[in-house]
Amino acid sequence: MSVYLHDIPLLEAQARLRQALQDADLWRVLGTETISLDENALGRVTSEPIWARISSPHYHASAMDGFAVRALATNGALPSKPMTLQIGPEADYVDTGDPLPDWANAVIPIENVESLDEHGKITEDVRKPGYIRIRASVPPWSHVRPLGEDIVATQLVLPAGHTLRPADLGAVAASGYEEIKVARKPKVAILPTGTELVPIGSELKAGDILEYNSLVIAAKIKAMGGEPTRFPIIKDDFDLICERVEEAARDHDLVLLNAGSSAGAEDFSAKVIQKLGTLLVHGVAVRPGHPVILGVIASGRKDRADFLNDDEIASSSASQSPRNDIVPIIGVPGYPVSAALTIDIFVEPIMAKWLGRRPNELQTETATLTRKIVSPPGDDDYVRVAVGKVGDRLLAAPLSRGAGVITSLVQADGLVIVPRGAQGIEAGEKVKVHLYRSRTEIERTILCIGSHDLTLDLLAQFLAEHDRRLASANVGSQGGLIALRRAEAHLAGSHLLDTKTGEYNISYIRQYMPNIPVKVVALVGREQGLLVRRGNPKGVKSLEDLNRPGIQFVNRQRGAGTRVLLDYHLNLLGIARESIIGYNQEEYTHLGLAAAIASGRADCGLGIAAAAQALDLDFIPLFQERYDLVIPRQHADSHLLAPLFGLLTGRGFREAVSRLTGYDVSVMGTVILEDQLND
Amino acid sequence: MSVYLHDIPLLEAQARLRQALQDADLWRVLGTETISLDENALGRVTSEPIWARISSPHYHASAMDGFAVRALATNGALPSKPMTLQIGPEADYVDTGDPLPDWANAVIPIENVESLDEHGKITEDVRKPGYIRIRASVPPWSHVRPLGEDIVATQLVLPAGHTLRPADLGAVAASGYEEIKVARKPKVAILPTGTELVPIGSELKAGDILEYNSLVIAAKIKAMGGEPTRFPIIKDDFDLICERVEEAARDHDLVLLNAGSSAGAEDFSAKVIQKLGTLLVHGVAVRPGHPVILGVIASGRKDRADFLNDDEIASSSASQSPRNDIVPIIGVPGYPVSAALTIDIFVEPIMAKWLGRRPNELQTETATLTRKIVSPPGDDDYVRVAVGKVGDRLLAAPLSRGAGVITSLVQADGLVIVPRGAQGIEAGEKVKVHLYRSRTEIERTILCIGSHDLTLDLLAQFLAEHDRRLASANVGSQGGLIALRRAEAHLAGSHLLDTKTGEYNISYIRQYMPNIPVKVVALVGREQGLLVRRGNPKGVKSLEDLNRPGIQFVNRQRGAGTRVLLDYHLNLLGIARESIIGYNQEEYTHLGLAAAIASGRADCGLGIAAAAQALDLDFIPLFQERYDLVIPRQHADSHLLAPLFGLLTGRGFREAVSRLTGYDVSVMGTVILEDQLND
Repeated sequence: MSVYLHDIPLLEAQARLRQALQDADLWRVLGTETISLDENALGRVTSEPIWARISSPHYHASAMDGFAVRALATNGALPSKPMTLQIGPEADYVDTGDPLPDWANAVIPIENVESLDEHGKITEDVRKPGYIRIRASVPPWSHVRPLGEDIVATQLVLPAGHTLRPADLGAVAASGYEEIKVARKPKVAILPTGTELVPIGSELKAGDILEYNSLVIAAKIKAMGGEPTRFPIIKDDFDLICERVEEAARDHDLVLLNAGSSAGAEDFSAKVIQKLGTLLVHGVAVRPGHPVILGVIASGRKDRADFLNDDEIASSSASQSPRNDIVPIIGVPGYPVSAALTIDIFVEPIMAKWLGRRPNELQTETATLTRKIVSPPGDDDYVRVAVGKVGDRLLAAPLSRGAGVITSLVQADGLVIVPRGAQGIEAGEKVKVHLYRSRTEIERTILCIGSHDLTLDLLAQFLAEHDRRLASANVGSQGGLIALRRAEAHLAGSHLLDTKTGEYNISYIRQYMPNIPVKVVALVGREQGLLVRRGNPKGVKSLEDLNRPGIQFVNRQRGAGTRVLLDYHLNLLGIARESIIGYNQEEYTHLGLAAAIASGRADCGLGIAAAAQALDLDFIPLFQERYDLVIPRQHADSHLLAPLFGLLTGRGFREAVSRLTGYDVSVMGTVILEDQLND
Repeated sequence: MSVYLHDIPLLEAQARLRQALQDADLWRVLGTETISLDENALGRVTSEPIWARISSPHYHASAMDGFAVRALATNGALPSKPMTLQIGPEADYVDTGDPLPDWANAVIPIENVESLDEHGKITEDVRKPGYIRIRASVPPWSHVRPLGEDIVATQLVLPAGHTLRPADLGAVAASGYEEIKVARKPKVAILPTGTELVPIGSELKAGDILEYNSLVIAAKIKAMGGEPTRFPIIKDDFDLICERVEEAARDHDLVLLNAGSSAGAEDFSAKVIQKLGTLLVHGVAVRPGHPVILGVIASGRKDRADFLNDDEIASSSASQSPRNDIVPIIGVPGYPVSAALTIDIFVEPIMAKWLGRRPNELQTETATLTRKIVSPPGDDDYVRVAVGKVGDRLLAAPLSRGAGVITSLVQADGLVIVPRGAQGIEAGEKVKVHLYRSRTEIERTILCIGSHDLTLDLLAQFLAEHDRRLASANVGSQGGLIALRRAEAHLAGSHLLDTKTGEYNISYIRQYMPNIPVKVVALVGREQGLLVRRGNPKGVKSLEDLNRPGIQFVNRQRGAGTRVLLDYHLNLLGIARESIIGYNQEEYTHLGLAAAIASGRADCGLGIAAAAQALDLDFIPLFQERYDLVIPRQHADSHLLAPLFGLLTGRGFREAVSRLTGYDVSVMGTVILEDQLND
């Protein structure tokens, strides 16, 4: 059998691993343990049904403070014909929760009796009278909680495989337990390998890669109910890796070997598994995640009992306790998004089986796709999307596809899965989204699209304090207006100069969003200028320097307001675009542009002062411009956006922005345009 | 100001507590702590925004194994016109993740080159050639992950108030952190008081109440992100309670005083708060939960620094650190359902504020109410409901209203809130349900209604293994058929004897469910007989004994199959119902009936052997009957119910039932009736 089975379908890969686990008698609850019934039992999974040992209440309990009586003896009492009962033989005081005397079968609440002393006079000592006078009869069992009202001994309280919630713990306690039998936590070893890896928090030099996959994986394992162990980074040394894997296999249920993302490293993992056991799958047709490796190796445990707890040893028989000589191992790809999805796709079903619970599932909703997804037809393709509700439509906007972009998982509101066989999905199609956030959280999300500005990050922080989430996508000013026309966002940031009138945005809005009433509010005035490295080594002073020999320029993308501004001034100056080296090198954000210069990829670019400051660049101010928020009328009046206007006219956000360099907050909140709705 | 403000509206009660916390500068994040960035940070809440310290990648990284080149130098390479580049000055081998040499700006993947030795011959040593031959040009920056592709230094990575998920930890690490500042966990003291309380697991005598509220509350506090401390049970002693409350106030942020549920105990709590501080609210118009008490007391802390961690001391200033001399205290009612809801309603918003996160919210769905809810118009009424999807309709069925019935919280799928001012909600109305379970879980729920049988509990356990949840409501056989007619359940358990034909169920189905095609499958044959206490002290032998003097009977409710059977045989024997003492005492389940006899509330009743065995009663067999499952045709063919038929015809469930006393499994799975759909 060939072990280099590149890119077999996902379902087949999962099936092979499952079959291997079944063959090893490991496709089952791994083991159980008895834990005490306290708050730490929360989230554990019952390993057997809980049948009530006792009833609750376990006696007939008074449900009120009052007097226990024989119901029959109260027959005939009327408001007009009161009846007197003697304390002792005919009535007895009971507090709520007290057991009824054997002879009693009802309780009269204390507020419905008159307490009399031994001479038949009204007494203040209402709880210890000699007699009580009643003016109504009571039916049997009134104001009594009968034995078993809540729980009857022998009834099923919880099934096996139930994840314990707070109230469940109470019900189990009420059923007569002080301990509970739960599935033991599967032990998962996480081994990061790669000579290029350095621990988080390290000082970095070029080529160093921060090792945080083991952190993300450990947190996922913990959230799934397992017990993760993070091993130290192992350098790329075949024998050393083999040694550590064998060590991990001895006292863990699952070994995750996280390789660097290079093909070389990946082959290393496969070879390790081949040496120590059986390679089942090498390469799965899933994106991201391709180079997943699945296998089983020998555990190296000599004695089954080594690995069992007292509970299991006490109860174990050959048929009940899983085999102990095989450990599954998964080669997890190195790119962080691939690594995270590999854990969700391959490890979660195993953890669910080992714990006896249902696999975790994401809620799904139907949404409209905003942009076309192109997908290789051979793969199951997991596409991260931002999700928001604009008007009545739920929208899914594809995020960065890069397997190295961990922030795409942070920003993602959900996943759209393009199944094997499909070449992609067209914009406007309805798609099933597996949601990472609750529907209510998504309904509190403000989708902001268009030009990027650093103040939007600050705005996101301030909006969060008002229970709104600002999700911004950077597509340039024109892209933002087009998205608004398509009703794909709630607002757009725009700084488009009308090169004829010198006015900002208005003519573009009329052009790109005809017949859509809008409100336009100024966010900030800001300086645009040239970003250059500290000390300006190339001596760049103005746009006239851009086509000087030896100057490498970096530009913003087509449609960006900054690019419009550049083109406007290049025209005024009569400078040909083609004469500028790097004019076609596009960056999508101010910070991306600044980073290109900081890294030496380019010498200069047009951008804002804040971006220069952020990356410690020099800034040569050239122009002043206004950055506006464009908001379709229907959203401007919505509850969702209400906090935004409060922030724009209040103090806190304004002050925070004014502390940034290159911003003029005097215009903030000024209404530039306010169309009325036609009807 | 009067402190006995009984039953003020919920919103006002919450507002008073909030105001008191605001006055004490406690309506804010309580404090922060810096923790290391590991898997234990999961679920903690960021206390400040995370701005990226470094970019990721922090250098231009190769995205493939291949050769770094100058893109410009590859211009002109074509399949027909290959180009040769010299290793060293023109090309350099890089692994994925390696930094690009300063002079390079693109990578050609290794599979797209031919490696040549120093003599221009093809070499096997593909990674260390002398030259490479290429047959296509590459654009600049292809196969490169540019600096900042994922994260650009200074960008917002996470806002404050964000609950950390696994991928977030990775993004924070990638941004250059190895520690993270989070809100500290609020410390919550839970003090159970009541002389009648005993710890869970105790041997019980009449009047003892198992103290499990503190367990449920502690688990809730933990799930909310707090740090609970469970105090030992305190007996009802005013001075002792005061002492313990003061002790708790010194090193906790919130004190929860869980009183016994009696009016006396409640007054005790109020007096304790009055003595130690200010009573804000005594009684809230909310059901269940009425006797909630809210107040603030002195913390008794001398020095603010006593209670601050190093982080806070280092950063604290008078305006940043909350006051330290006041502690809120809540008198939590004693009934378990009231206690649990009090925590959700009053404590969760405080915990959210103290942690700086959004309050937890339940997802909501619209459902049709199956039964009328009657509600006191002055109260906000929280009604637990079972929720299931029958056909296309989502249904909400009210559960037990008893504040003492903790199992109603275990069984509940959600809450319906009847607002203050409303007197109730009619059956058939649409209601908003706050869901405890996910929608997908609810869609896997089989609603079973009708007559109760112990085997249904076993069936629930077996169905759970097939990813189905069986929710059963016991309304008697006739009630079940009526519910099926109303499309309020997927199936009903029924054992209705046709007293004319001696046949079971069919004639009743035709009567109660006209024109609804059904499938009827036998579940079990079972013995019905008289349940009496061990040793049969009253010497009951047959139905003829029921109207003997001194015999207290207990009956099943109207519509129950067992009651039909009783009436049938009483008629045959000519025994008048009125002559039987206790004929009108109704129990809704076999176990409830057995419990009534076990407790001495009655001497005998008609029921099944399994119930007698469960509660250690004697059983006098009288009749054999068949218990069927009645399933509307549309559900019988559904995916949801498919596992049920597998269980009825398979071995495991049959064997488990056959181990119970009084059941005949030979009929199990026999199809009694199978209507075809008309079209």
